Amino acid sequence: MTPSTPPHRLQLNPRGRLQHFLTTEGLSTELLTEILDTADSFVSVGKQAVKKVPLLRGKTVVNLFFEASTRTRTTFELAAKRLSADVLNIDISTSATAKGESLMDMLWNLEAMDSDMFVVRHQASGAPHFIAEHVTPTVAVINAGDGRHAHPTQAMLDMYTIRRHKGAFPQLKVAIVGDVLHSRVARSQVHALRGLNVGEVRVIGPKTLIPHDFADLGATLHYDMAQGLKDVDVVIMLRLQRERMESALLPSESEFYRLYGLTQEKLAFAKPDAIVMHPGPINRGVEIESSVADSPRSVILQQVNYGIAVRMAVLSMAMSGQNEMQTVTGEQ
Amino acid sequence: MTPSTPPHRLQLNPRGRLQHFLTTEGLSTELLTEILDTADSFVSVGKQAVKKVPLLRGKTVVNLFFEASTRTRTTFELAAKRLSADVLNIDISTSATAKGESLMDMLWNLEAMDSDMFVVRHQASGAPHFIAEHVTPTVAVINAGDGRHAHPTQAMLDMYTIRRHKGAFPQLKVAIVGDVLHSRVARSQVHALRGLNVGEVRVIGPKTLIPHDFADLGATLHYDMAQGLKDVDVVIMLRLQRERMESALLPSESEFYRLYGLTQEKLAFAKPDAIVMHPGPINRGVEIESSVADSPRSVILQQVNYGIAVRMAVLSMAMSGQNEMQTVTGEQ
Amino acid sequence: MTPSTPPHRLQLNPRGRLQHFLTTEGLSTELLTEILDTADSFVSVGKQAVKKVPLLRGKTVVNLFFEASTRTRTTFELAAKRLSADVLNIDISTSATAKGESLMDMLWNLEAMDSDMFVVRHQASGAPHFIAEHVTPTVAVINAGDGRHAHPTQAMLDMYTIRRHKGAFPQLKVAIVGDVLHSRVARSQVHALRGLNVGEVRVIGPKTLIPHDFADLGATLHYDMAQGLKDVDVVIMLRLQRERMESALLPSESEFYRLYGLTQEKLAFAKPDAIVMHPGPINRGVEIESSVADSPRSVILQQVNYGIAVRMAVLSMAMSGQNEMQTVTGEQ
Repeated sequence: MTPSTPPHRLQLNPRGRLQHFLTTEGLSTELLTEILDTADSFVSVGKQAVKKVPLLRGKTVVNLFFEASTRTRTTFELAAKRLSADVLNIDISTSATAKGESLMDMLWNLEAMDSDMFVVRHQASGAPHFIAEHVTPTVAVINAGDGRHAHPTQAMLDMYTIRRHKGAFPQLKVAIVGDVLHSRVARSQVHALRGLNVGEVRVIGPKTLIPHDFADLGATLHYDMAQGLKDVDVVIMLRLQRERMESALLPSESEFYRLYGLTQEKLAFAKPDAIVMHPGPINRGVEIESSVADSPRSVILQQVNYGIAVRMAVLSMAMSGQNEMQTVTGEQ
Repeated sequence: MTPSTPPHRLQLNPRGRLQHFLTTEGLSTELLTEILDTADSFVSVGKQAVKKVPLLRGKTVVNLFFEASTRTRTTFELAAKRLSADVLNIDISTSATAKGESLMDMLWNLEAMDSDMFVVRHQASGAPHFIAEHVTPTVAVINAGDGRHAHPTQAMLDMYTIRRHKGAFPQLKVAIVGDVLHSRVARSQVHALRGLNVGEVRVIGPKTLIPHDFADLGATLHYDMAQGLKDVDVVIMLRLQRERMESALLPSESEFYRLYGLTQEKLAFAKPDAIVMHPGPINRGVEIESSVADSPRSVILQQVNYGIAVRMAVLSMAMSGQNEMQTVTGEQ
Repeated sequence: MTPSTPPHRLQLNPRGRLQHFLTTEGLSTELLTEILDTADSFVSVGKQAVKKVPLLRGKTVVNLFFEASTRTRTTFELAAKRLSADVLNIDISTSATAKGESLMDMLWNLEAMDSDMFVVRHQASGAPHFIAEHVTPTVAVINAGDGRHAHPTQAMLDMYTIRRHKGAFPQLKVAIVGDVLHSRVARSQVHALRGLNVGEVRVIGPKTLIPHDFADLGATLHYDMAQGLKDVDVVIMLRLQRERMESALLPSESEFYRLYGLTQEKLAFAKPDAIVMHPGPINRGVEIESSVADSPRSVILQQVNYGIAVRMAVLSMAMSGQNEMQTVTGEQ
């Protein structure tokens, strides 16, 4: 396996099944739909008296977070535990890398402990891809967010939310609003929406925060909310990455809110039954008006709920794709 | 459910069963006794080869500690694991609240993950009550200590210890000694002792550290150990909250020890078979003489042991009270 | 049990079975061999679809790390989980000891929670021994590294690696290279190698880093790699404890590497089929040349793999030795 394997090929085993989950880019409509269908079967697990299925019993899932994110780590931990896996949380900042150990040496060590899965969060774009290229073939790698590149499980839970609340994708117009430039999720969303043959996808925000290559991905670019939100079925607000943003790109938070914050007034441009989404945590009064976040049209908390089920789907599908190959090659 | 619901009503479901555990105030003798009886059945679990019962299997218990307390967190984690629950430890200081997320948004997120129980420790009095008022009806809230207000599971394990070692409450005289003002547990103890119809409860300490309203709760106030400990069956020492105390309230630790530290000499004022209790961690030579802490009359380590069983009782009863209502309303 | 009981007696129950694991010193050839044989049966567990055996189901294993070590803690956590135990990780730096609680009070508290096993890492030599002397007889204590004194599970996984790759010990020459003075593992290795009747054991390093008493332990001392490595079957490199070393003992890292770093060139002094070992994490270019670490003769990652199995062996044997005595005395 050469370093030049593109992620969308790397993440499929020779039979075309998921064996890692690195990106929504290049995934077939069938595979994207299979993830959503599998998640469907897991949503009900969270409502059972015993919220557990034995699919990953006796598997070792390592949460490898090079960048702290309690929220994302918690959702993966919960998904893995509800699949009956054993979970190890590795806090990289205090671990052996501080003692001068290289990334690869650390990974090889974790592999040698017969780990089955690495859930990787990293500040550098491409890190999970790099890890997937270099791990032993028995380990599945799940991208839990890398730099500005991708956050594919977040994108898939968004897709699940859209399908569940608005139905078939080809009929839908979806708008993604805000700081697209610093967002790892916007890119993953556009790839997934296109893969699912969405009717139309728009990105909306200030010119300084909308990268031009989104047009090449099949999105239409808008710098004005009235125009961009017109007749859409779904409004996906992005989180303002205040901690990452260089001040030069944006005059001020209040200016951003005035132009792009989702208020009741601006939401009126969308269809009357449009739903409102946000990956959380929300900045009330910065990206979104409180009354919009709490309105019946907001499905923000449903997203969180579906997020566990979607992660259970991705974890179990990737594990199954790995095991399939172990059986074939007799390597395990 | 309005914000003005008092905690002792809020914590009972319409059938009068525990559905949260926020305070010992206002609980009936029957319910307090039921907690102790339930704990009885769990004490033996810790002595079995397999220290597990399946009562909370597949439930998600979230330890939500806004204030670090390794000891209390550990006892709840152990209690939940021995009930076969899945446990999530959320470290609030490093989590999304640091990113500007509101408390309620964080709670709604955890709810949306189909959590079953929040074990809440908070530096603000009333926080668990506030949370119980606002969570979705499927989530049970357990108060693991809030500000100076309450620490009801600690009080219940103290009650269990007293009953186990001294028998029926109406025959007993109990003294609570020390820094009552800064203690979250003293108030919970007095409510529980009164609810269990204790013969007499006294609080003893320097005037500056004994709030006057304890008289209204049914305790007699003493500022002198000789008088206060006279003929008591149980001496409960409080921890000196050095980290919380403003220096003005107390001349010095050695002065405190001279007047209120439990020495063999002062213990002689109590009944010859009086037991000595302390919530831990103990400050040897500050609240208590080492030889007293280690004497056969000290039941301090038994308290720790019973603490796991009492927490198992409270967790399983609150979960059961919640599930009962879910079944009735068909909400789950 | 008096404080003067030597560790090698303290760790055996009256029937001569392991009940703690504190040191490799003084263990019989039979017991050392039994640990290796037991580990053999666990190596395959890591290759199963369900990597779990129920030997410690319902047991409470407490990782008590007074000194942070993500790597060692992780291996013990994984070993305990694969034995189906419940694991508590106690972070001492933030726990009650910070509130002025004594070590013994903390231990008594953990005992009172019906803990079954303490896995102890401590910066002070002898701390696990001290703890084993003072804990209640139902708790097994495992030394996970104490000061410069011992790291017996690391030594046993090294023995397992040697036996698995090189066969019977009496035929073998083993060299231990590097900073022997600051190494907790070198001493444990020499005791284990001698207990297993190794043919010859040599320690190699600069005079300032080789304590003279290693000669009394039965090792031959060498200050030159050409001489020391001549015809050995096994080369064990030690980690350079840069964070612990006082600068005076060593001119510089590059000087150390020139003289004692394991390069292909120096490795040529050893037998052609000699294996290379290192406890990790490795400092590439400081103790070892990258091409040596990654060569087929390096068994560094196999050591990590066997480490889980060896720890499972030690944990289950010590637990079994404890339970045996509980049954005899009826104490449990």
